[in-house]
Amino acid sequence: MTDPARLAAQLAFLTEADKLKSVLRAGTLADRSRRENSGEHSWHVALFAMVLADQAADGVDIARVIRMLLIHDLVEIDTGDTPIHANDGQSHGSAGLLAQERAAADRLFGLLPSDQAAEFRALWEEFEAAETPDAVFAKSLDRVQPVMQNLASDGGTWVEYAVTRDQLETRVGHRVARGAPGIWAHLAPLLDRWFTSR
Amino acid sequence: MTDPARLAAQLAFLTEADKLKSVLRAGTLADRSRRENSGEHSWHVALFAMVLADQAADGVDIARVIRMLLIHDLVEIDTGDTPIHANDGQSHGSAGLLAQERAAADRLFGLLPSDQAAEFRALWEEFEAAETPDAVFAKSLDRVQPVMQNLASDGGTWVEYAVTRDQLETRVGHRVARGAPGIWAHLAPLLDRWFTSR
Ligand SMILES: [Ca+2]
Repeated sequence: MTDPARLAAQLAFLTEADKLKSVLRAGTLADRSRRENSGEHSWHVALFAMVLADQAADGVDIARVIRMLLIHDLVEIDTGDTPIHANDGQSHGSAGLLAQERAAADRLFGLLPSDQAAEFRALWEEFEAAETPDAVFAKSLDRVQPVMQNLASDGGTWVEYAVTRDQLETRVGHRVARGAPGIWAHLAPLLDRWFTSR
Repeated sequence: MTDPARLAAQLAFLTEADKLKSVLRAGTLADRSRRENSGEHSWHVALFAMVLADQAADGVDIARVIRMLLIHDLVEIDTGDTPIHANDGQSHGSAGLLAQERAAADRLFGLLPSDQAAEFRALWEEFEAAETPDAVFAKSLDRVQPVMQNLASDGGTWVEYAVTRDQLETRVGHRVARGAPGIWAHLAPLLDRWFTSR
Protein backbone atom coordinates (compact mmCIF):
# COMPACT_ATOMS: atom_id res chain seq x y z
CA MET A 1 0.00 0.00 0.00
CA THR A 2 1.14 3.47 -0.87
CA ASP A 3 1.45 5.95 1.99
CA PRO A 4 0.21 9.20 0.37
CA ALA A 5 2.28 11.50 2.60
CA ARG A 6 5.42 9.46 1.92
CA LEU A 7 4.92 9.52 -1.85
CA ALA A 8 4.07 13.23 -1.82
CA ALA A 9 7.32 13.94 0.05
CA GLN A 10 9.33 11.84 -2.41
CA LEU A 11 7.81 13.63 -5.40
CA ALA A 12 8.39 17.04 -3.80
CA PHE A 13 12.07 16.12 -3.33
CA LEU A 14 12.30 15.02 -6.97
CA THR A 15 10.77 18.28 -8.20
CA GLU A 16 13.18 20.28 -6.01
CA ALA A 17 16.07 18.22 -7.42
CA ASP A 18 15.18 19.55 -10.87
CA LYS A 19 16.94 22.78 -9.86
CA LEU A 20 20.33 21.05 -10.13
CA LYS A 21 19.91 21.38 -13.92
CA SER A 22 20.22 25.15 -13.49
CA VAL A 23 23.49 25.06 -11.51
CA LEU A 24 26.28 25.91 -13.93
CA ARG A 25 29.79 24.51 -13.62
CA ALA A 26 33.01 26.18 -14.70
CA GLY A 27 33.65 23.77 -17.56
CA THR A 28 31.83 23.33 -20.83
CA LEU A 29 30.43 20.49 -22.87
CA ALA A 30 33.05 18.66 -24.92
CA ASP A 31 32.05 20.68 -28.02
CA ARG A 32 32.42 23.97 -26.06
CA SER A 33 28.88 25.01 -27.05
CA ARG A 34 27.92 26.03 -23.50
CA ARG A 35 28.77 25.51 -19.82
CA GLU A 36 27.87 22.18 -18.31
CA ASN A 37 25.24 21.99 -15.57
CA SER A 38 25.48 19.87 -12.45
CA GLY A 39 22.45 17.71 -13.33
CA GLU A 40 23.87 16.46 -16.62
CA HIS A 41 27.34 16.22 -15.01
CA SER A 42 25.80 13.90 -12.39
CA TRP A 43 24.40 11.69 -15.17
CA HIS A 44 27.75 11.65 -16.93
CA VAL A 45 29.79 10.63 -13.88
CA ALA A 46 27.26 7.90 -13.03
CA LEU A 47 27.77 6.60 -16.58
CA PHE A 48 31.54 6.79 -15.99
CA ALA A 49 31.05 4.47 -12.99
CA MET A 50 28.99 2.04 -15.05
CA VAL A 51 31.52 1.93 -17.90
CA LEU A 52 34.75 2.08 -15.87
CA ALA A 53 33.73 -0.41 -13.17
CA ASP A 54 36.70 -2.64 -14.02
CA GLN A 55 39.04 0.17 -12.90
CA ALA A 56 37.74 0.03 -9.32
CA ALA A 57 39.58 -1.73 -6.52
CA ASP A 58 38.38 -5.16 -5.43
CA GLY A 59 35.37 -4.91 -3.17
CA VAL A 60 34.03 -1.63 -4.56
CA ASP A 61 30.24 -1.84 -4.94
CA ILE A 62 29.50 -0.08 -8.24
CA ALA A 63 25.78 0.14 -7.58
CA ARG A 64 26.53 2.13 -4.40
CA VAL A 65 29.06 4.27 -6.28
CA ILE A 66 26.38 5.09 -8.86
CA ARG A 67 23.88 6.02 -6.12
CA MET A 68 26.49 8.22 -4.49
CA LEU A 69 27.25 9.99 -7.75
CA LEU A 70 23.56 10.55 -8.52
CA ILE A 71 23.19 12.60 -5.31
CA HIS A 72 26.73 13.92 -4.78
CA ASP A 73 26.08 17.43 -6.12
CA LEU A 74 22.51 18.05 -4.92
CA VAL A 75 23.73 20.48 -2.23
CA GLU A 76 24.83 22.77 -5.08
CA ILE A 77 21.16 23.69 -5.53
CA ASP A 78 21.76 25.95 -2.51
CA THR A 79 25.51 26.58 -2.64
CA GLY A 80 26.25 26.69 -6.38
CA ASP A 81 29.22 24.88 -7.88
CA THR A 82 32.68 25.67 -6.50
CA PRO A 83 35.22 25.24 -9.32
CA ILE A 84 38.20 23.19 -8.19
CA HIS A 85 40.72 25.48 -9.91
CA ALA A 86 39.15 28.77 -8.79
CA ASN A 87 40.74 30.82 -5.98
CA ASP A 88 44.14 29.10 -6.45
CA GLY A 89 42.50 25.73 -5.73
CA GLN A 90 41.81 26.74 -2.12
CA SER A 91 38.00 26.86 -2.02
CA HIS A 92 37.23 23.18 -1.69
CA GLY A 93 37.18 22.05 1.91
CA SER A 94 37.05 25.55 3.41
CA ALA A 95 35.11 25.73 6.67
CA GLY A 96 32.65 28.23 5.25
CA LEU A 97 31.79 26.08 2.27
CA LEU A 98 31.47 22.96 4.41
CA ALA A 99 28.99 24.71 6.71
CA GLN A 100 26.95 25.90 3.72
CA GLU A 101 26.93 22.41 2.23
CA ARG A 102 25.77 20.87 5.50
CA ALA A 103 22.92 23.36 5.75
CA ALA A 104 21.95 22.55 2.16
CA ALA A 105 22.02 18.82 2.92
CA ASP A 106 19.79 19.42 5.95
CA ARG A 107 17.23 21.25 3.82
CA LEU A 108 17.29 19.07 0.69
CA PHE A 109 17.52 15.57 2.14
CA GLY A 110 15.08 16.77 4.82
CA LEU A 111 12.39 16.93 2.13
CA LEU A 112 12.45 13.12 1.94
CA PRO A 113 10.66 10.71 4.29
CA SER A 114 12.84 10.38 7.40
CA ASP A 115 14.26 6.91 6.61
CA GLN A 116 15.37 8.04 3.16
CA ALA A 117 16.56 11.40 4.47
CA ALA A 118 18.93 9.55 6.80
CA GLU A 119 20.03 7.09 4.10
CA PHE A 120 20.74 9.74 1.47
CA ARG A 121 22.46 12.00 4.00
CA ALA A 122 24.74 9.16 5.11
CA LEU A 123 25.60 8.32 1.51
CA TRP A 124 26.44 11.97 0.79
CA GLU A 125 28.55 12.24 3.99
CA GLU A 126 30.39 9.07 2.97
CA PHE A 127 31.14 10.57 -0.45
CA GLU A 128 32.36 13.80 1.09
CA ALA A 129 34.60 12.04 3.62
CA ALA A 130 36.27 10.02 0.82
CA GLU A 131 37.45 7.29 3.16
CA THR A 132 35.56 4.13 2.14
CA PRO A 133 36.59 2.31 -1.05
CA ASP A 134 33.24 3.19 -2.67
CA ALA A 135 33.64 6.90 -1.92
CA VAL A 136 37.30 6.97 -2.98
CA PHE A 137 36.37 5.49 -6.37
CA ALA A 138 33.37 7.82 -6.75
CA LYS A 139 35.56 10.87 -5.99
CA SER A 140 38.11 9.70 -8.54
CA LEU A 141 35.49 9.57 -11.27
CA ASP A 142 34.09 12.96 -10.24
CA ARG A 143 37.60 14.35 -10.82
CA VAL A 144 38.28 12.41 -14.05
CA GLN A 145 35.14 13.55 -15.87
CA PRO A 146 36.17 17.25 -16.04
CA VAL A 147 39.68 16.22 -17.09
CA MET A 148 38.13 14.36 -20.04
CA GLN A 149 35.92 17.39 -20.81
CA ASN A 150 38.98 19.66 -20.77
CA LEU A 151 40.98 17.34 -23.02
CA ALA A 152 38.04 17.25 -25.45
CA SER A 153 37.59 21.03 -25.43
CA ASP A 154 41.22 22.08 -25.82
CA GLY A 155 41.90 22.94 -22.21
CA GLY A 156 38.63 24.34 -20.87
CA THR A 157 39.04 25.41 -17.25
CA TRP A 158 42.81 24.82 -17.33
CA VAL A 159 43.09 27.74 -19.73
CA GLU A 160 40.50 29.83 -17.91
CA TYR A 161 42.26 29.44 -14.54
CA ALA A 162 45.84 29.24 -15.89
CA VAL A 163 46.38 25.83 -14.33
CA THR A 164 49.83 24.24 -14.58
CA ARG A 165 50.54 20.55 -15.01
CA ASP A 166 51.88 20.46 -11.43
CA GLN A 167 48.75 22.10 -10.05
CA LEU A 168 46.61 19.59 -11.93
CA GLU A 169 48.61 16.79 -10.37
CA THR A 170 48.18 18.20 -6.85
CA ARG A 171 44.52 19.19 -7.10
CA VAL A 172 43.26 16.32 -9.25
CA GLY A 173 45.84 13.69 -10.09
CA HIS A 174 46.61 12.56 -6.56
CA ARG A 175 42.93 12.04 -5.84
CA VAL A 176 42.25 10.17 -9.09
CA ALA A 177 45.35 8.03 -8.63
CA ARG A 178 44.13 7.02 -5.18
CA GLY A 179 40.85 5.54 -6.43
CA ALA A 180 41.54 4.78 -10.07
CA PRO A 181 45.30 4.47 -10.59
CA GLY A 182 44.91 2.75 -13.96
CA ILE A 183 42.95 5.68 -15.35
CA TRP A 184 45.43 8.29 -14.16
CA ALA A 185 48.37 6.29 -15.51
CA HIS A 186 46.61 6.19 -18.86
CA LEU A 187 45.82 9.92 -18.87
CA ALA A 188 49.17 11.21 -17.55
CA PRO A 189 51.04 11.06 -20.91
CA LEU A 190 48.08 12.68 -22.70
CA LEU A 191 48.12 15.45 -20.11
CA ASP A 192 51.91 15.84 -20.34
CA ARG A 193 51.55 16.27 -24.09
CA TRP A 194 48.72 18.80 -23.80
CA PHE A 195 50.50 20.96 -21.22
CA THR A 196 53.87 20.75 -23.03
CA SER A 197 52.37 21.79 -26.36
CA ARG A 198 51.01 25.07 -24.98
CA MET B 1 46.40 -4.55 -15.12
CA THR B 2 44.81 -1.97 -17.39
CA ASP B 3 44.40 -2.90 -21.04
CA PRO B 4 45.18 0.42 -22.81
CA ALA B 5 42.98 -0.30 -25.85
CA ARG B 6 40.05 -1.25 -23.62
CA LEU B 7 40.33 1.89 -21.50
CA ALA B 8 40.76 4.08 -24.58
CA ALA B 9 37.56 2.61 -26.06
CA GLN B 10 35.67 3.19 -22.80
CA LEU B 11 36.82 6.80 -22.61
CA ALA B 12 35.94 7.41 -26.27
CA PHE B 13 32.43 6.10 -25.58
CA LEU B 14 32.11 8.39 -22.55
CA THR B 15 33.20 11.42 -24.57
CA GLU B 16 30.71 10.53 -27.33
CA ALA B 17 27.99 10.16 -24.68
CA ASP B 18 28.54 13.83 -23.80
CA LYS B 19 26.48 14.68 -26.91
CA LEU B 20 23.29 13.53 -25.14
CA LYS B 21 23.46 16.83 -23.23
CA SER B 22 22.77 18.63 -26.52
CA VAL B 23 19.65 16.61 -27.42
CA LEU B 24 16.65 18.76 -26.54
CA ARG B 25 13.36 17.30 -25.38
CA ALA B 26 9.91 18.79 -25.93
CA GLY B 27 9.37 19.66 -22.28
CA THR B 28 11.05 22.27 -20.12
CA LEU B 29 12.63 22.44 -16.70
CA ALA B 30 10.12 22.75 -13.88
CA ASP B 31 10.71 26.53 -13.77
CA ARG B 32 10.10 26.78 -17.55
CA SER B 33 13.44 28.58 -18.02
CA ARG B 34 14.47 26.40 -20.98
CA ARG B 35 13.89 23.04 -22.65
CA GLU B 36 15.24 19.98 -20.87
CA ASN B 37 18.02 17.95 -22.47
CA SER B 38 18.19 14.16 -22.55
CA GLY B 39 21.39 13.97 -20.47
CA GLU B 40 19.92 15.76 -17.46
CA HIS B 41 16.61 13.92 -18.00
CA SER B 42 18.54 10.64 -17.73
CA TRP B 43 20.01 11.77 -14.40
CA HIS B 44 16.59 12.83 -13.14
CA VAL B 45 14.86 9.53 -14.00
CA ALA B 46 17.72 7.55 -12.41
CA LEU B 47 17.16 9.63 -9.26
CA PHE B 48 13.42 8.85 -9.54
CA ALA B 49 14.34 5.14 -9.43
CA MET B 50 16.53 5.63 -6.38
CA VAL B 51 13.87 7.59 -4.48
CA LEU B 52 10.77 5.68 -5.61
CA ALA B 53 12.20 2.18 -5.21
CA ASP B 54 9.45 1.26 -2.75
CA GLN B 55 6.89 1.69 -5.54
CA ALA B 56 8.40 -1.14 -7.60
CA ALA B 57 6.91 -4.63 -7.71
CA ASP B 58 8.55 -7.34 -5.61
CA GLY B 59 11.65 -8.69 -7.31
CA VAL B 60 12.54 -5.52 -9.22
CA ASP B 61 16.31 -4.92 -9.05
CA ILE B 62 16.65 -1.16 -8.59
CA ALA B 63 20.37 -1.16 -9.36
CA ARG B 64 19.57 -2.68 -12.78
CA VAL B 65 16.72 -0.21 -13.28
CA ILE B 66 19.14 2.65 -12.61
CA ARG B 67 21.68 1.25 -15.09
CA MET B 68 18.93 0.89 -17.69
CA LEU B 69 17.81 4.48 -17.18
CA LEU B 70 21.37 5.82 -17.39
CA ILE B 71 21.69 4.44 -20.94
CA HIS B 72 18.06 4.38 -22.13
CA ASP B 73 18.22 7.55 -24.22
CA LEU B 74 21.76 7.35 -25.63
CA VAL B 75 20.44 6.43 -29.09
CA GLU B 76 18.92 9.92 -29.22
CA ILE B 77 22.44 11.23 -29.93
CA ASP B 78 21.77 10.02 -33.48
CA THR B 79 17.96 10.08 -33.70
CA GLY B 80 17.03 13.08 -31.58
CA ASP B 81 14.20 12.92 -29.05
CA THR B 82 10.76 11.88 -30.31
CA PRO B 83 8.14 13.64 -28.17
CA ILE B 84 5.47 11.22 -27.01
CA HIS B 85 2.63 13.67 -27.72
CA ALA B 86 3.89 14.82 -31.14
CA ASN B 87 2.25 13.54 -34.33
CA ASP B 88 -0.96 12.57 -32.48
CA GLY B 89 1.06 10.25 -30.27
CA GLN B 90 1.83 7.95 -33.23
CA SER B 91 5.61 8.37 -33.60
CA HIS B 92 6.82 6.05 -30.85
CA GLY B 93 7.18 2.49 -32.04
CA SER B 94 6.99 3.32 -35.76
CA ALA B 95 9.07 0.99 -37.94
CA GLY B 96 11.16 3.86 -39.27
CA LEU B 97 12.09 5.12 -35.82
CA LEU B 98 12.86 1.62 -34.56
CA ALA B 99 15.27 1.03 -37.45
CA GLN B 100 17.00 4.37 -36.79
CA GLU B 101 17.31 3.56 -33.10
CA ARG B 102 18.81 0.17 -33.81
CA ALA B 103 21.39 1.70 -36.14
CA ALA B 104 22.23 4.26 -33.45
CA ALA B 105 22.61 1.49 -30.86
CA ASP B 106 24.94 -0.38 -33.23
CA ARG B 107 27.13 2.68 -33.62
CA LEU B 108 27.14 3.95 -30.03
CA PHE B 109 27.39 0.74 -28.04
CA GLY B 110 29.83 -0.47 -30.70
CA LEU B 111 32.33 2.10 -29.41
CA LEU B 112 32.68 0.05 -26.21
CA PRO B 113 34.86 -3.04 -25.71
CA SER B 114 32.90 -6.00 -27.13
CA ASP B 115 31.85 -7.50 -23.78
CA GLN B 116 30.42 -4.18 -22.63
CA ALA B 117 28.94 -3.44 -26.04
CA ALA B 118 26.94 -6.67 -25.76
CA GLU B 119 25.97 -6.00 -22.13
CA PHE B 120 24.81 -2.41 -22.72
CA ARG B 121 23.01 -3.36 -25.92
CA ALA B 122 21.13 -6.15 -24.13
CA LEU B 123 20.16 -3.80 -21.31
CA TRP B 124 18.87 -1.22 -23.81
CA GLU B 125 16.94 -3.89 -25.76
CA GLU B 126 15.41 -5.07 -22.49
CA PHE B 127 14.30 -1.53 -21.68
CA GLU B 128 12.82 -1.06 -25.13
CA ALA B 129 10.95 -4.37 -25.04
CA ALA B 130 9.35 -3.44 -21.68
CA GLU B 131 8.60 -7.04 -20.76
CA THR B 132 10.77 -7.83 -17.72
CA PRO B 133 9.76 -6.39 -14.32
CA ASP B 134 12.91 -4.21 -14.28
CA ALA B 135 12.14 -2.74 -17.70
CA VAL B 136 8.44 -2.22 -16.93
CA PHE B 137 9.33 -0.22 -13.81
CA ALA B 138 12.03 1.75 -15.66
CA LYS B 139 9.58 2.64 -18.45
CA SER B 140 7.02 3.75 -15.87
CA LEU B 141 9.48 6.19 -14.32
CA ASP B 142 10.55 7.45 -17.75
CA ARG B 143 6.87 8.35 -18.33
CA VAL B 144 6.24 9.77 -14.85
CA GLN B 145 9.13 12.24 -14.89
CA PRO B 146 7.69 14.38 -17.74
CA VAL B 147 4.26 14.26 -16.08
CA MET B 148 5.82 15.76 -12.95
CA GLN B 149 7.64 18.37 -15.07
CA ASN B 150 4.37 19.30 -16.77
CA LEU B 151 2.51 19.57 -13.47
CA ALA B 152 5.29 21.82 -12.14
CA SER B 153 5.35 24.01 -15.26
CA ASP B 154 1.60 24.53 -15.68
CA GLY B 155 1.03 22.04 -18.44
CA GLY B 156 4.20 22.11 -20.52
CA THR B 157 3.89 19.76 -23.47
CA TRP B 158 0.19 19.06 -22.74
CA VAL B 159 -0.54 22.65 -23.70
CA GLU B 160 1.91 22.67 -26.61
CA TYR B 161 0.40 19.53 -28.16
CA ALA B 162 -3.22 20.11 -26.99
CA VAL B 163 -3.29 16.83 -25.10
CA THR B 164 -6.56 15.72 -23.50
CA ARG B 165 -6.88 13.88 -20.20
CA ASP B 166 -8.00 10.77 -22.14
CA GLN B 167 -4.98 10.94 -24.45
CA LEU B 168 -2.69 11.26 -21.44
CA GLU B 169 -4.29 8.15 -19.97
CA THR B 170 -3.80 6.16 -23.20
CA ARG B 171 -0.29 7.34 -24.04
CA VAL B 172 1.15 7.57 -20.53
CA GLY B 173 -1.19 6.43 -17.77
CA HIS B 174 -1.61 2.84 -18.88
CA ARG B 175 2.13 2.38 -19.06
CA VAL B 176 2.83 4.01 -15.71
CA ALA B 177 0.01 2.07 -14.05
CA ARG B 178 1.53 -1.17 -15.32
CA GLY B 179 4.87 -0.66 -13.58
CA ALA B 180 4.07 1.80 -10.80
CA PRO B 181 0.34 1.63 -10.04
CA GLY B 182 0.71 3.40 -6.70
CA ILE B 183 2.27 6.42 -8.37
CA TRP B 184 -0.41 6.70 -11.04
CA ALA B 185 -3.19 6.30 -8.48
CA HIS B 186 -1.61 9.17 -6.54
CA LEU B 187 -1.24 11.41 -9.60
CA ALA B 188 -4.63 10.72 -11.22
CA PRO B 189 -6.66 13.13 -9.05
CA LEU B 190 -4.00 15.84 -9.49
CA LEU B 191 -4.21 15.33 -13.23
CA ASP B 192 -8.01 15.33 -13.21
CA ARG B 193 -7.91 18.65 -11.40
CA TRP B 194 -5.36 20.19 -13.77
CA PHE B 195 -7.22 19.15 -16.93
CA THR B 196 -10.63 20.13 -15.51
CA SER B 197 -9.43 23.59 -14.51
CA ARG B 198 -8.33 24.51 -18.04
CA1 LIG C 1 13.46 9.00 -21.56
